[in-house]
Amino acid sequence: MSENKKQSRTVSVIGLGQMGTRLAQAFLAAGYRTTGWNRSAEKTDALVAQGALGAATVADAVAASTLVVVRLPDYGIVRSLLDPVAGSLRGRVLVNLTSGTTEEAGRMADWAAGYGAAYLDGAAMSGTRLVGRPEALFVFSGSPAAFAEHRTVLTSLGNAVHLGADPALAALYDTALFGLAWGALAGFYHAVALVGAEGVDPTAFATVATGHMPFVTSLMADHARQIEDGRYPDDDGTVRVHAAAMQHLLDTSAAQGVGTDVPELVKALLDRAAGAGFGGDGIASVVETIRKGASNV
Amino acid sequence: MSENKKQSRTVSVIGLGQMGTRLAQAFLAAGYRTTGWNRSAEKTDALVAQGALGAATVADAVAASTLVVVRLPDYGIVRSLLDPVAGSLRGRVLVNLTSGTTEEAGRMADWAAGYGAAYLDGAAMSGTRLVGRPEALFVFSGSPAAFAEHRTVLTSLGNAVHLGADPALAALYDTALFGLAWGALAGFYHAVALVGAEGVDPTAFATVATGHMPFVTSLMADHARQIEDGRYPDDDGTVRVHAAAMQHLLDTSAAQGVGTDVPELVKALLDRAAGAGFGGDGIASVVETIRKGASNV
Repeated sequence: MSENKKQSRTVSVIGLGQMGTRLAQAFLAAGYRTTGWNRSAEKTDALVAQGALGAATVADAVAASTLVVVRLPDYGIVRSLLDPVAGSLRGRVLVNLTSGTTEEAGRMADWAAGYGAAYLDGAAMSGTRLVGRPEALFVFSGSPAAFAEHRTVLTSLGNAVHLGADPALAALYDTALFGLAWGALAGFYHAVALVGAEGVDPTAFATVATGHMPFVTSLMADHARQIEDGRYPDDDGTVRVHAAAMQHLLDTSAAQGVGTDVPELVKALLDRAAGAGFGGDGIASVVETIRKGASNV
Repeated sequence: MSENKKQSRTVSVIGLGQMGTRLAQAFLAAGYRTTGWNRSAEKTDALVAQGALGAATVADAVAASTLVVVRLPDYGIVRSLLDPVAGSLRGRVLVNLTSGTTEEAGRMADWAAGYGAAYLDGAAMSGTRLVGRPEALFVFSGSPAAFAEHRTVLTSLGNAVHLGADPALAALYDTALFGLAWGALAGFYHAVALVGAEGVDPTAFATVATGHMPFVTSLMADHARQIEDGRYPDDDGTVRVHAAAMQHLLDTSAAQGVGTDVPELVKALLDRAAGAGFGGDGIASVVETIRKGASNV
């Protein structure tokens, strides 16, 4: 397949698990000549049946495209598969969507640079179901030039965002956004349990709750600016007022026989902020007692 | 002002604190003849300067409009102000946007019914700044007929949603949505602290994070259906896989010197769900260990 090497409308996908297959399908759907490789051939065959080219070896997959996308269970497997073909990566762009740590991303970028390949580390933030739709967030970090050159093909996966030249940024955002999502989901599950104790259906509550989330999201944007400025106006209420309201949620949850973990956590964060002197400040000041170097963490 | 009593384009607002003033301003902006009363006259005067009518007494405010909106510091003050004029509430609609408990809402509805007034309990969910804009959520519960009759004027406050005939529902949703918002904010503050330890600006992170929230919100809608069905497919990952990823977030936070409260809470929720036999189920099964009657709460 070396005749395709320089064609810009080709892409190779190494690793055809659930996510890798969705990536390859999104490239195919966007009209790219897509070559797939997987350790077990049946997954490659399934993709070939959908219009892809099948590579018999990792070397063939690399040779097929300038843009080589990798999605494997871990970075150790990435290295074990790519080490034998490293010499043929020169001049190509390696996009690694394998989940890993910031340290692994940095080491992988150094490895790729050592073989003359441009490197982008990436993370799929929206699960597998939305891949190929514009709302599916994919974050990338590493070579700005490689991202600029391949932005169009990467955008066939979803909302492709380049975070910066530091290859560790994608893994960092991946981890941080995972925590953000879980904070919201923990709050949602607790709320569903609380209203459920009074007989409200989860879906009835979700209709109202999801309509409320754009407002909550807008607070995040406002509060980020406050945190950047280090000034916490009380437009959205003070730490002290929110602590009192959270105590009410805690009491109500306990009275209903619903788990109190979520309100207890938030109450503790608010009490800690009040104890650090932020009682009369806006609620975004809570970050001051979470961040690195906070004296009372 | 009794000549306005039966006009449908009039509304009275009792209590002109920060929120009450914003409510009155929104009614004025929507073209309603708005009468305001406040214990300290200077707030009434300020509203009159913006085109409102000023009531000298609570009785005058009640007499001025069929629709009487109350926003006061607490339910005790509501009762102390309305008890002396209760006889003149017959045939009117009392909309109480004072923050309180579900029990207080129920007692207030009974009180209003005893005097022949229709009652709607309400909660302003989006702070004061957005009042009057379509994205400001106001939830109401109580008399469906009163809500249907006055839906248009209440919609001048924002997105006016009627939750049901039980007057306690608005206070219940208020409390539950507060917990939901705080889960999301706690997750956000932790995420800002984590990326901040690596030198990422809060606003740069917020740009990506807020773009990710519609996906997180869509999970809530999906998971509500799963909870209603009592079936937890693993489309968004299993409890076990998420617990491992949350341990990674916990380790990363600790290594960065960032507070670990938020990932610790989520890890505990996931571990509890796994311990209850949901390790191989989808993450929405976490609700099973929070809800009323959960054996291991």
